[in-house]
Amino acid sequence: MAELGANARAAAHVLAVTPAVQKRRAIKAAADALEAARETIVAANEKDMAQARAANLNAAMLDRLALDTARIDGMIQGLREVAALDDPVGRILDERTRPNGLRIQRVSVPVGVIGIIYESRPNVTADAGALCVMSGNAAILRCGSESFHSSHAIASCLRSGLKAAELSEDCIQIIPTTDRAAVGILLAMDGDVDIIVPRGGRSLIERVKEGSHIPVLAHLDGICHVYVHGSADPDTARDVTFNAKMRRTGVCGATETLLIDRQAATMLPGILAPLFEAGCEVRGDAEAMALDSRVVAASEVDWDTEYLDAIISVRVVDGLDQAIAHVNSHGSHHTDAILTEDAAAAERFLDEVDSAIVVLNASTQYADGGEFGMGAEIGISNGKLHARGPVGVEQLTTYKYKVFGTGQVRP
Amino acid sequence: MAELGANARAAAHVLAVTPAVQKRRAIKAAADALEAARETIVAANEKDMAQARAANLNAAMLDRLALDTARIDGMIQGLREVAALDDPVGRILDERTRPNGLRIQRVSVPVGVIGIIYESRPNVTADAGALCVMSGNAAILRCGSESFHSSHAIASCLRSGLKAAELSEDCIQIIPTTDRAAVGILLAMDGDVDIIVPRGGRSLIERVKEGSHIPVLAHLDGICHVYVHGSADPDTARDVTFNAKMRRTGVCGATETLLIDRQAATMLPGILAPLFEAGCEVRGDAEAMALDSRVVAASEVDWDTEYLDAIISVRVVDGLDQAIAHVNSHGSHHTDAILTEDAAAAERFLDEVDSAIVVLNASTQYADGGEFGMGAEIGISNGKLHARGPVGVEQLTTYKYKVFGTGQVRP
Repeated sequence: MAELGANARAAAHVLAVTPAVQKRRAIKAAADALEAARETIVAANEKDMAQARAANLNAAMLDRLALDTARIDGMIQGLREVAALDDPVGRILDERTRPNGLRIQRVSVPVGVIGIIYESRPNVTADAGALCVMSGNAAILRCGSESFHSSHAIASCLRSGLKAAELSEDCIQIIPTTDRAAVGILLAMDGDVDIIVPRGGRSLIERVKEGSHIPVLAHLDGICHVYVHGSADPDTARDVTFNAKMRRTGVCGATETLLIDRQAATMLPGILAPLFEAGCEVRGDAEAMALDSRVVAASEVDWDTEYLDAIISVRVVDGLDQAIAHVNSHGSHHTDAILTEDAAAAERFLDEVDSAIVVLNASTQYADGGEFGMGAEIGISNGKLHARGPVGVEQLTTYKYKVFGTGQVRP
Repeated sequence: MAELGANARAAAHVLAVTPAVQKRRAIKAAADALEAARETIVAANEKDMAQARAANLNAAMLDRLALDTARIDGMIQGLREVAALDDPVGRILDERTRPNGLRIQRVSVPVGVIGIIYESRPNVTADAGALCVMSGNAAILRCGSESFHSSHAIASCLRSGLKAAELSEDCIQIIPTTDRAAVGILLAMDGDVDIIVPRGGRSLIERVKEGSHIPVLAHLDGICHVYVHGSADPDTARDVTFNAKMRRTGVCGATETLLIDRQAATMLPGILAPLFEAGCEVRGDAEAMALDSRVVAASEVDWDTEYLDAIISVRVVDGLDQAIAHVNSHGSHHTDAILTEDAAAAERFLDEVDSAIVVLNASTQYADGGEFGMGAEIGISNGKLHARGPVGVEQLTTYKYKVFGTGQVRP
């Protein structure tokens, strides 16, 4: 592991000053290598799938693990899209000349070495590796034990792409063991790893956050809200709420709680109708139950629960202040929406809700780097420092100050 | 302590959306209050000084603790300068409209609650409090026990400034006890404190970094380098090296190691002459000793030592690559300078040295937010994430995404 770290640091120093054209060449060559290695990858994936079935993994996990032609196409396409992104390195973020003649530039640079810890989805290998290379960072990948063969087959393709572009293969390394102790070692490698990105379920992310002295970019929960203000358009309220909850219930941007203003109470049955129709369970406070007899009773725990399922909690609130207070105290500072036709109410909600993403009159399920036009994302952060919201190539950079003098000494 | 945290969070929510004019009014009113309270502050400081003398604190600590008219003037002036800074909150960092009509803004917002832990300098109270308010953050201050009376007297003035501007006094709170356990509690208040800024010696910063799960903005060491390249101008090399080491030896931007290129070896006696004249001790490798007989032997430990004193280590290096490698492995990623007339060498050094601040032909002692034109700074960070280099009001902000829709649902 120590060698892995030292190799990554050395590779990162070179990659940090590698021109964009060479980084793009490496990523495109990796896409070509994936194309050429389809059969090898499918064979490796079959090994993983056989072991997973033997270990009685559940259907959801098997689905995440499986690689078919469409998913391999998706990875290849993803790599080509990352290679087409603007180079996030070397942007001049600020420049000024001081009265003493010093010229001071703030320039974006890669962070250095990124450790990515993921679970069953083998395609994270390709996404994360390519995003790191494009942002000039070396990657140390730690795949889940269940996707070991698939992830290693994909990592070989990425490394052959690096080689084809005359870059060190150590820009992307994958930990060559399934030993759980390796994760602990990785989390303690402060000197050689600058950021840890965990990709997976809550227990993984909790373990990483607790076990690491290295900064972690991740979100633990996505307890997202839709607040229907008194002046909301009823059709928008119905359609957006439905999409925010039901488009995909297992994603972090899925809404878990509907806050309905007392002024909008009459809209509630209309909003809930398509949810019931789709089989969604609705848990509400006493007032919501009184408004619609199909609503079952919510308990206090519901306001703090990420269901990741076809369940929604509903609370009737007494105006904007109460809605904002509820979101700030029960939410997870991820993504929260207001539905309203009142510009002043919208402005207050967007300003005062303390979340990474605040939305007016649209679905919370837009919480995604691709939808934001940032290209691929390595994850979403609900921490406040460094990166907030989608983590794309730009968020994998930091900056340095370049000071250009002509012999100045400080008085 | 829990009440302090809850008060800070509540105050921060309001302060986050307070217009700049009101924040400026509070800071200017605090400056006026300091002006009016000169005698009270001096009296409080005399109490602290008497206790410090009774406790036999050394002269350097007594000097840091003392508040005379000039230092009170300095604080008042500092507050007025902070009040004149551009508002760092509400800047639109990025804006785009997506093909589906969603308009997405990335807007700067305050981080929230900043915990500042400092030692003997009572004037940190004023600087830190004002920087937090101007950046829209609530501050929880923890002063050193030796500056307790002085810091509390200053904090009262800040709080009366807040009151005069109709802002909650809880925007700036100071922990009302010298009990050391309070620091441990503050470091564990993840929910209510977003950043910890320790201001003081190495042992304080180490303790805070190890004891906190809250992100810490600070630098542990300032092991800064000057590298004299073969093509350096000899006069610049002499004057900049002298200033970088000797202007003030106790600051983090003071140079600790001089790397001299073998090609520039003949310049060494001329560079060292003013250092010896000023009483600086020079510890060098064998080659440096051979070039100047006054150089004493350095040991391996010297390359990793922050002297904060009139001592410099000197190593002869074999070209740019060795210089860069030395800085990246022995430095502290703080501030490092190259002296050269060769543009290509300068470019490589500035690109490849992995430090917060890289300098061409100027003194490392320019490492300062004020010198960078950023206004006052709360400290300098040599971490890579969020803030790198001087931490001013802009670095005390984060961002949120505001998404403006017209009923969009995600396909």
